[in-house]
Amino acid sequence: MSRTPLTREETTTALAALSGWALSEDHKSIRKDFKFRDFNAAFAFMTRIALLAEKLDHHPEWFNVYNKVEITLTTHSAKGLTALDMRMAQLANEYAG
Amino acid sequence: MSRTPLTREETTTALAALSGWALSEDHKSIRKDFKFRDFNAAFAFMTRIALLAEKLDHHPEWFNVYNKVEITLTTHSAKGLTALDMRMAQLANEYAG
Amino acid sequence: MSRTPLTREETTTALAALSGWALSEDHKSIRKDFKFRDFNAAFAFMTRIALLAEKLDHHPEWFNVYNKVEITLTTHSAKGLTALDMRMAQLANEYAG
Amino acid sequence: MSRTPLTREETTTALAALSGWALSEDHKSIRKDFKFRDFNAAFAFMTRIALLAEKLDHHPEWFNVYNKVEITLTTHSAKGLTALDMRMAQLANEYAG
Repeated sequence: MSRTPLTREETTTALAALSGWALSEDHKSIRKDFKFRDFNAAFAFMTRIALLAEKLDHHPEWFNVYNKVEITLTTHSAKGLTALDMRMAQLANEYAG
Repeated sequence: MSRTPLTREETTTALAALSGWALSEDHKSIRKDFKFRDFNAAFAFMTRIALLAEKLDHHPEWFNVYNKVEITLTTHSAKGLTALDMRMAQLANEYAG
Repeated sequence: MSRTPLTREETTTALAALSGWALSEDHKSIRKDFKFRDFNAAFAFMTRIALLAEKLDHHPEWFNVYNKVEITLTTHSAKGLTALDMRMAQLANEYAG
Repeated sequence: MSRTPLTREETTTALAALSGWALSEDHKSIRKDFKFRDFNAAFAFMTRIALLAEKLDHHPEWFNVYNKVEITLTTHSAKGLTALDMRMAQLANEYAG
């Protein structure tokens, strides 16, 4: 998947389809806070993201405490957002059900 | 949770509420074969069971290949089935959605 | 394991044996930043902590990006540090090998 | 990594460097039984293999009970062993430390 930076327009279009993901002020990353029933569900979600991360060779910045998982996505090599971030955001939404 | 062996009647009653779980011929274990969309979903399910296993101090015998997970439950110290097996079976069904 | 708050002296003694863990300014939490070879090793470490967390019913606050894992431990119900935090810190050091 | 079947000679050479892995009678798979300190360590090892499996798009057949993990590797599309199996076996040995 391409690591070319998305244009402002491509970013806006992609985010419109990604429920709950918010663009950072500098437009270089997106973030969503997920909440689960308990730690068991939260960590199973994190395991799905971890497996995906290794498959895509693209890794999240994330924070967890008990049932909360806060994920920030950016593509360091592109110094901004790419199709990889949008793909991971889309699958995170699917995994969170 | 009790590690006292279940009676034949208790086993029958418990299994009636556990969709897909089958009693072994010797009545000492139960088994269910789960099928998921892909390995990602299968291993996330296994992670949920693993977390539960440590919480209950009760561990499954299981086999996985790609999207299939075959689980056998028994309580070794009781040489048969106990409430722990039924609890794990019930939560496995919930986790598998 | 006890959720009674540790005294200042007990905290100092416990931390002396915990390589790399630092006390917060308000003395209510401890933190350590771990670094691994890659994401694979970092997430396996996180899985060990997750399994332990469910066993102890005591959960970390943690942040991960690629090979880095930053862990903060505190016992919310005790509004400070307890033996549970020290036990988790000790095992985290062991797991990180 | 290539999914071309290994020749008998390539298989023999590769296995010579893989401590503990045994060739099946039909020469189509290799197997090793791992034993860990406890379930926590065993499942962390499984998580490492799972992450690797998604990265390589190559998945093990494996059985676990408590601290034991039995892994069988084969490449279904090649109806036998390939470089992928040897790579996974090598990394499994590394992960098991």
